[in-house]
Amino acid sequence: MNQCFGCNTCKSADKPLELFIRSLPLETSHHRVEGQSVKCGFGLQGVCCRLCSNGPCRVTPKAPKGICGATADVIVSRNFLRAVASGSGCYIHIVENTALNLKNTALAKGLIKGEKTLERLCGLFGVTAADKYGKALAVAEMVLADLYKPEYEKMALVKKLAYEPRYANWEKLGILPGGANAEIVKGVVKCSTNLNSDPVDMLLTCLKLGISTGLYGLTLTNLLNDVMLGEPEIRLAPVGLGVIDPDYINIMITGHQHSCFSYLQDRLTDPDVTAKAVAAGAKGFRLVGCTCVGQDLQLRGAHYEEVFVGHAGNNYTSEAVLATGAIDAVLSEFNCTLPGIEPICEALNIKQICLDDVAKKSNAEYMPFIFESRECDSGRIIDAVIASYRARRGEVALNLLPEHGNQDTLTGVSEVSLKDFLGGNWKPLIDLIVSGEIKGVAGVVGCSNLTFGGHDVLTVELTKELIKRDIIVLSAGCSSGGLENCGLMSPAAAELAGPKLKAICKKLGIPPVLNFGPCLAIGRLEIVATELAAAIGIDLPQMPLVLSAPQWLEEQALADGAFGLALGLPLHLGEAPFITGSKVVVDVLTEQMKSLTGGQVIIDPDAVSAADKLEGIILEKRAALGI
Amino acid sequence: MNQCFGCNTCKSADKPLELFIRSLPLETSHHRVEGQSVKCGFGLQGVCCRLCSNGPCRVTPKAPKGICGATADVIVSRNFLRAVASGSGCYIHIVENTALNLKNTALAKGLIKGEKTLERLCGLFGVTAADKYGKALAVAEMVLADLYKPEYEKMALVKKLAYEPRYANWEKLGILPGGANAEIVKGVVKCSTNLNSDPVDMLLTCLKLGISTGLYGLTLTNLLNDVMLGEPEIRLAPVGLGVIDPDYINIMITGHQHSCFSYLQDRLTDPDVTAKAVAAGAKGFRLVGCTCVGQDLQLRGAHYEEVFVGHAGNNYTSEAVLATGAIDAVLSEFNCTLPGIEPICEALNIKQICLDDVAKKSNAEYMPFIFESRECDSGRIIDAVIASYRARRGEVALNLLPEHGNQDTLTGVSEVSLKDFLGGNWKPLIDLIVSGEIKGVAGVVGCSNLTFGGHDVLTVELTKELIKRDIIVLSAGCSSGGLENCGLMSPAAAELAGPKLKAICKKLGIPPVLNFGPCLAIGRLEIVATELAAAIGIDLPQMPLVLSAPQWLEEQALADGAFGLALGLPLHLGEAPFITGSKVVVDVLTEQMKSLTGGQVIIDPDAVSAADKLEGIILEKRAALGI
Repeated sequence: MNQCFGCNTCKSADKPLELFIRSLPLETSHHRVEGQSVKCGFGLQGVCCRLCSNGPCRVTPKAPKGICGATADVIVSRNFLRAVASGSGCYIHIVENTALNLKNTALAKGLIKGEKTLERLCGLFGVTAADKYGKALAVAEMVLADLYKPEYEKMALVKKLAYEPRYANWEKLGILPGGANAEIVKGVVKCSTNLNSDPVDMLLTCLKLGISTGLYGLTLTNLLNDVMLGEPEIRLAPVGLGVIDPDYINIMITGHQHSCFSYLQDRLTDPDVTAKAVAAGAKGFRLVGCTCVGQDLQLRGAHYEEVFVGHAGNNYTSEAVLATGAIDAVLSEFNCTLPGIEPICEALNIKQICLDDVAKKSNAEYMPFIFESRECDSGRIIDAVIASYRARRGEVALNLLPEHGNQDTLTGVSEVSLKDFLGGNWKPLIDLIVSGEIKGVAGVVGCSNLTFGGHDVLTVELTKELIKRDIIVLSAGCSSGGLENCGLMSPAAAELAGPKLKAICKKLGIPPVLNFGPCLAIGRLEIVATELAAAIGIDLPQMPLVLSAPQWLEEQALADGAFGLALGLPLHLGEAPFITGSKVVVDVLTEQMKSLTGGQVIIDPDAVSAADKLEGIILEKRAALGI
Repeated sequence: MNQCFGCNTCKSADKPLELFIRSLPLETSHHRVEGQSVKCGFGLQGVCCRLCSNGPCRVTPKAPKGICGATADVIVSRNFLRAVASGSGCYIHIVENTALNLKNTALAKGLIKGEKTLERLCGLFGVTAADKYGKALAVAEMVLADLYKPEYEKMALVKKLAYEPRYANWEKLGILPGGANAEIVKGVVKCSTNLNSDPVDMLLTCLKLGISTGLYGLTLTNLLNDVMLGEPEIRLAPVGLGVIDPDYINIMITGHQHSCFSYLQDRLTDPDVTAKAVAAGAKGFRLVGCTCVGQDLQLRGAHYEEVFVGHAGNNYTSEAVLATGAIDAVLSEFNCTLPGIEPICEALNIKQICLDDVAKKSNAEYMPFIFESRECDSGRIIDAVIASYRARRGEVALNLLPEHGNQDTLTGVSEVSLKDFLGGNWKPLIDLIVSGEIKGVAGVVGCSNLTFGGHDVLTVELTKELIKRDIIVLSAGCSSGGLENCGLMSPAAAELAGPKLKAICKKLGIPPVLNFGPCLAIGRLEIVATELAAAIGIDLPQMPLVLSAPQWLEEQALADGAFGLALGLPLHLGEAPFITGSKVVVDVLTEQMKSLTGGQVIIDPDAVSAADKLEGIILEKRAALGI
């Protein structure tokens, strides 16, 4: 167990983590990059089709069509639409369960921690009910009703949620979404074999799915969670593997559906449960944040200071977190829960519990979250985790990394807490942008992956390049996990910013990279952008605002990206999705989109040149605004 | 235009068609097989994953896992589940539109041609309404309500539609489906990256999707269509390219959603519309059947003798049908509408109209079917088709194949018409099975493809082998198209049957292969099987009954296959789906399934040995029944 598994791990922007992983006696995803380094060119270009038994067909110069006659354009756009539809499915699954949990909470007259957000939603939706429970119920039911509309009935809340000029653009393009679930089914059908063969129609369908993903899967999930779990409050918090305290019974959490274990979480600090932990030899229970659900807990950490010990890291840090030996159980309810954790849990005798069968890991116990039986189920989970602690501690060696991460990551940033911080309105920020003290705003969002230079490498480098150019960075998603562990969300990171941005950061005591939390919070960034645009009186594509998902990973990121394009924003990606085999798809996404929505995709794997391009776009937008 | 495009076409069981295609001056799918003959081994085995940007990852002996840690078992089962979920989506789209059309027909007090089927559905569903419109409305709404239930609410009609012992089996396995659309979304989510990694759970999900596909997408679509379009009546009908009469304005139809153009179809024989055709120089309008919608019209052809000229051929015959030059328009509303028809339509100046945007072809006009505006829209379609006729006839050379096919294919076979034919009950058939005059029943169903020996080659050879062994064959799907064009559904085919089956066929004047029509009619076969089993008093897996989809093509076929497995039936496939890279998936489908549902998958590309295996299973089942 003490021998290093292998030294050929991929790079990480997080050097202590890279060294830690390299020294591990266990295989991680970082080790597997090398063995998978030879990529299939057909797959990379998206010109491989395996939709039917005549296939797989691959487009080559000598065979420019599949057997059925599908061209590269058709094959690429079908594959892409299927990915976007599936990614949308993931987010819609999340918002559906979140709305259901809010509905059940309201019916049970349970905890409503975010009354301000509830009022805000009621204002938006036109809800008037007698009390907070009636209001929460009405809000939840409106969301659920929209999700279950047929495809040919437009969702009612889109108009209430969308920025007016954007709604008009979407209406003109015919991409206002019908029921979100039905749109996913239709998307999946449309890209099936011998069905749609019109690349432009399929790409417009992607935009439509982007809208339902963005407004419901992202934006509303945050707000519904705010109602149940409490609103984000700005504070400094610890991050990294250093947050793990072996004196406690530690549960690593992964997923995106935080409201599924909020009851359990509250129980973990109750005296009777703490007493059980103490009886087992521990000081109590601690939740160790990982992936987006960790980011979400961190965001709301002001409400959970006792039980939530901090965010340890993003998706590709999860294996390392487990390898410390101090985690006694993994509680997962969605992605990004890597299959790679399974053999590590096996080796280190870590109990795995899944709360949602869509995320059932092969060697995990499935204990479905059922609102009605949450009390009893939470008891069973607690007992199972204690049993795991008892069985493994003492038997499994610890391999901690206490110095990893930092203690002062600024977190709790949301569209509300940021505005409050600025004094209750966006004027100070707008003034800074207009004066050029802040050149522009970049949302650096999305996942972490391992192949574009290594774990978080491009994310961190690009962010450094952007802040150096006095562009303030707002981050959400696993990208945040890397940025915070690398110190870019600590106030001291002001030193890395350009002179103007640095001065502002120092004056306000903030870092140049603001942490909005999970990928879901891309929805919060959209609210910030929209409120800024509305305050200025312009449409989103006119804003000196760019998006980048430098290290996007999953199909969900593509659905997010489609939202960004529907919003009319420039979207940088470190590497292309599997689309480069189609001239039409590339042209529509990178060029034609400008005249459709105002958006555009920019592909660039290099931090400096990507930052140059994004800065160039910001400067163009500034010039057009005459600022 | 008169030069042969290329001689390297694939084989077809239909030799005149093979020669015709080989002589064409146009490229067809049959020509493209050669260029795509080198297949990717990773794709074939299902061990290529491109769900995330770290990929594509491919499992090799040196790299047994993807970067995330997904094993071959996980990658294969995810890919397979995604295919089944998408295939289910296609069928559920069809039944939803069919139910909608029935609902709208009922509200408009439109034509209800199948009152017997309506009564049957009312009996099944417990509907009591004052008149046929009220009944049709209630039935349609019950179907729609089920399709739109959330995943956690079971569909109500499953119990009413399913055979009792099967329902019990599904309940025990926990695979009773929730709302069909929600199950599709959940299926697509479950197989997304870093979510489910439990192959058995994913395969059980496939079975669940199979049930909703089979009972709703297949069975109910037929019955709802029977209500609107008229019930099948047994008769002899012409098939093949010979049905095309160049003196008419010919519309080739492709798809699965027949009720979307039934209004138009009725209009085509109205005097005012015929007069327009005559004014353009034609004798009138004719619909030329192609793919499943052609099979469906053929099945109900007794109601449409004037306008429906016959079924020309299956999916991979469609390019040849167009190449005759005598088709003036293609009207499509779903798959299997090959992209390969597009350049042919371009070259031969054939108008393409799509009625459903899921099937929008790149160079087609999209004229959405909207119930409310069907009168006006049909007028526009008629005018567009006439314009196409005027523009192209005389300009485009004809290249007919008048001798192709035959005049005496027995069609119109359904679970009702067959029972009526037998005298109103299944006893005569059961007696023949019990006595051994008929050894067993084989459903030869599904698609046609081009790679397992060529177009319809295995389908026709296997069917010949089965009937030779006194096994009666029931067919549904594009497989029927090949079988009928090759004469196996003509009474004279009795000569090809074994002595006992031959004697029965001759006595009854029927062929040994009974044509149930489109792939949707796999649902009718299931009713026949269930009624036979119920009459005998046994469960389906005990029946001397086997299924084969020898030349399955699309993901829809995989969803159908999952239904067959859920029914507990042995299912032969000529070639494996993309699963052979996973020992677990292969083992569950081919072996463990026997103890789960009673079903099993049998892979065999050879007609003789596959027939031997299927006969062996039938003999085992007979022995177990003591017959």
